[in-house]
Amino acid sequence: MADEGLRFPTAIGTSDETQIRLLGQDLAADLMGKVGFGELAYWLVAGRRPTPGEVRVFETVLVALADHGFTPTAIAARLTYLSAPESLQGALAAGLLGGGSRFLGVTEDCGRFLAGVLADGVPEDDAGFDALALAAVTEARAAKNFVPGLGHPVHKKQDPRTPVLIRIAEEEGLRGPHLRLFEAIGRVHPQVLNRTLPLNGAGVCGAALADLGLPVDLLRGFALLARAAGLLGHLAEERRNPIGMDVYLTVDRNAVYED
Amino acid sequence: MADEGLRFPTAIGTSDETQIRLLGQDLAADLMGKVGFGELAYWLVAGRRPTPGEVRVFETVLVALADHGFTPTAIAARLTYLSAPESLQGALAAGLLGGGSRFLGVTEDCGRFLAGVLADGVPEDDAGFDALALAAVTEARAAKNFVPGLGHPVHKKQDPRTPVLIRIAEEEGLRGPHLRLFEAIGRVHPQVLNRTLPLNGAGVCGAALADLGLPVDLLRGFALLARAAGLLGHLAEERRNPIGMDVYLTVDRNAVYED
Amino acid sequence: MADEGLRFPTAIGTSDETQIRLLGQDLAADLMGKVGFGELAYWLVAGRRPTPGEVRVFETVLVALADHGFTPTAIAARLTYLSAPESLQGALAAGLLGGGSRFLGVTEDCGRFLAGVLADGVPEDDAGFDALALAAVTEARAAKNFVPGLGHPVHKKQDPRTPVLIRIAEEEGLRGPHLRLFEAIGRVHPQVLNRTLPLNGAGVCGAALADLGLPVDLLRGFALLARAAGLLGHLAEERRNPIGMDVYLTVDRNAVYED
Amino acid sequence: MADEGLRFPTAIGTSDETQIRLLGQDLAADLMGKVGFGELAYWLVAGRRPTPGEVRVFETVLVALADHGFTPTAIAARLTYLSAPESLQGALAAGLLGGGSRFLGVTEDCGRFLAGVLADGVPEDDAGFDALALAAVTEARAAKNFVPGLGHPVHKKQDPRTPVLIRIAEEEGLRGPHLRLFEAIGRVHPQVLNRTLPLNGAGVCGAALADLGLPVDLLRGFALLARAAGLLGHLAEERRNPIGMDVYLTVDRNAVYED
Repeated sequence: MADEGLRFPTAIGTSDETQIRLLGQDLAADLMGKVGFGELAYWLVAGRRPTPGEVRVFETVLVALADHGFTPTAIAARLTYLSAPESLQGALAAGLLGGGSRFLGVTEDCGRFLAGVLADGVPEDDAGFDALALAAVTEARAAKNFVPGLGHPVHKKQDPRTPVLIRIAEEEGLRGPHLRLFEAIGRVHPQVLNRTLPLNGAGVCGAALADLGLPVDLLRGFALLARAAGLLGHLAEERRNPIGMDVYLTVDRNAVYED
Repeated sequence: MADEGLRFPTAIGTSDETQIRLLGQDLAADLMGKVGFGELAYWLVAGRRPTPGEVRVFETVLVALADHGFTPTAIAARLTYLSAPESLQGALAAGLLGGGSRFLGVTEDCGRFLAGVLADGVPEDDAGFDALALAAVTEARAAKNFVPGLGHPVHKKQDPRTPVLIRIAEEEGLRGPHLRLFEAIGRVHPQVLNRTLPLNGAGVCGAALADLGLPVDLLRGFALLARAAGLLGHLAEERRNPIGMDVYLTVDRNAVYED
Repeated sequence: MADEGLRFPTAIGTSDETQIRLLGQDLAADLMGKVGFGELAYWLVAGRRPTPGEVRVFETVLVALADHGFTPTAIAARLTYLSAPESLQGALAAGLLGGGSRFLGVTEDCGRFLAGVLADGVPEDDAGFDALALAAVTEARAAKNFVPGLGHPVHKKQDPRTPVLIRIAEEEGLRGPHLRLFEAIGRVHPQVLNRTLPLNGAGVCGAALADLGLPVDLLRGFALLARAAGLLGHLAEERRNPIGMDVYLTVDRNAVYED
Repeated sequence: MADEGLRFPTAIGTSDETQIRLLGQDLAADLMGKVGFGELAYWLVAGRRPTPGEVRVFETVLVALADHGFTPTAIAARLTYLSAPESLQGALAAGLLGGGSRFLGVTEDCGRFLAGVLADGVPEDDAGFDALALAAVTEARAAKNFVPGLGHPVHKKQDPRTPVLIRIAEEEGLRGPHLRLFEAIGRVHPQVLNRTLPLNGAGVCGAALADLGLPVDLLRGFALLARAAGLLGHLAEERRNPIGMDVYLTVDRNAVYED
């Protein structure tokens, strides 16, 4: 079926009878046991092997985003597992499908917003970041837009993930312009909004991923990868100690039918 | 809305205004920067923190399963991204939905098969494993069933992942009964089947995960987690260097319409 | 890119600059306005145009299966819409993914079970159906299997859909061996099980679809098509009068965290 | 588990031991055999029973959108079925997940665009529609936006579905302002764009659905419902006469690995 005219190029992987190649490496000889899973995920998306410092920041982000308890996505995955327990992939997929604009989108939205503000040039010092942040927040407010990543429904004063992630990025020399701009937004926004909001941890994750050079159009993908681990945890717990049936019955028994 | 009568128990996570708790830990203080992503995924499913040796074997499995080039699932994810590029979660979910019995099922099928054979007791030595393996292969053949994990469509003599994973499990003291039984199957099956088949690397992964004490009913979940990283790699490449449109046009232009 | 060696045959559809062909017909001239949607769905799967009587029974089945209130699948779809309202296809897909063995599987399971029992021959009269039914129920009980379609968690005495669907099939001359065998199971099972269970309406739907000559391996597909309409109804209502956030908060606020 | 404080209102459906209620009707007594499947789908979303004329236009739209041959979504569904044939719901969901902005979005995009243009008032006659259309196309061009529904990649002169659907809407007295505005766009756009493009049939479907009073934010849902039938046709054909493996092998064997 091979055909001179057909070409499907890829730099990801291929295999023949004796070897599996992945990202230009011999999977068995060069990667297995030598490369961590987070490191490989980064490499797969970025197309280059990350440094140990980049891996540390990256895995910190994945850990930060992996789970947040009974989110709508976790509940949807458990209900799907209840209905179709033979199809674990379906339950996982159902959970990931909630990874859209509202409950899992802030990571990508924040990274993309910051990258847009930085498109015309990166300030040289904190004063420059503050000025740029002030202009960006002012413009967002004038357009009646939210600044992505500002505020959190539960952590109303401070998101506990925020200072830890900034510190780790700093330790690894990876506190770049996106994080610095987001921190500046944290400093200046009260002047414009007349109230003080915390920097959302999921937003900080987006800033950190953008500083790692990962494509801002795909940042949601890392939130999804992290959440895949969290959803597997929920599905394993649902198998041991289910709540799906009780969720369903709670809704069904309290349904109010309005003819 | 809180109600004395409603209780949805979980040991995964919760949060309040100042803290996020995950698996009994303080996410920001105890996990971020201190626990790897693979380690956390293991912990989430097993409900206990793995040892460093367990993490090494586990991440080796995830790396081994992450990608295998242009599989049907990778192509499905790329075609979905072509049609709905605004919904990365949909493209990822579409790819994972192929993680069923045929192309991604061997990991779980093999682990489950081995666990079933071991249910009545674990042999003491290699001779005992060989005898148990011989009985299991003979029984499978008599019932006209395949032995899951035996044979590979591409790696007809040896799957390059197999010896590496067994060696790493051995190094970490984690070459347990499932791996030993699978190796015994590799030794004895030619007596029954009259031909020599390789031990499939994805099947060895299932044996290794079962030896890690992970629930055999959920082994598919780890293949899905690994594949989520591979699919993100494909979607990132599809964004940079797309093939989805060419796949579609190749099929459409060579369609033969049979009225 | 056309290639002599590549051939992807299909009898479904194709199009060129001036015409769209579907199922051997001119879509615009022969189908639009002349064929109903249910009729087309039947034709697409069966590969032949159904008779008006077949369409009536088929649409009755779709109507019977379209919705059942706050099922786990409807709740999962609403929670996914809450999280990702920009991706209606994701919410619909999440709902359909629950269409597996437990909550939506009885239609296919029942049709398949009946077809299996009938594989060795179709009885000539009710006495023959009763004898065959008695043997089948006795065998299922001996193997500790449930008879698919027998019993209903809510309609403990009679499922109101059952007599209506049987009557309509009878009116259209389409009460065939699968329905007759299922009715016989309804008559004889108390002798074996020592209690009287109703014939589940979703199971009767499976019997009716099998009598229509539709492939028993795909009966779940019709339940999914019917449910797609119901899920769109739920999503439209969720948009007008949402409950997803309340479901989420009910679960989250009544979470009991077990460290 | 019932609780005074919990209320989940719905007007869709409920059931008790003897009755299933759907949309305020007795499902078995009032709907089964008396209401068509398309009619029920309309009713579920609109919350009101459609007239026979509305049903005819609605089903014509569903028939027009049900299938278009080997689209990316149909190929993705077939590849997913190849990988996980035991999970029909997964294959169907994978196909629907491509129902996003590019290949299935034009119906909703067009309806929404027309509704936006009409938001400030509906013209009284064709001259008024032409003037409004001219302003809208001029504005879209100035903003460098496409007019949704104008043009088709295959039907470069005329989409055969377009005149048929307009005629049927006219016959049923349902050729309303959205269709009339879209027709006016067809008349006036060459003055602005300097070339003549056809009115896309999927776009006309969006105009017709909007004229039926269906919510423009959910028009994509009807395209998805229609496509669900088409995808079931593809999956039934894939079961009888598969092409998925050949698609996979065509891509895999023509992969060009770029280290």
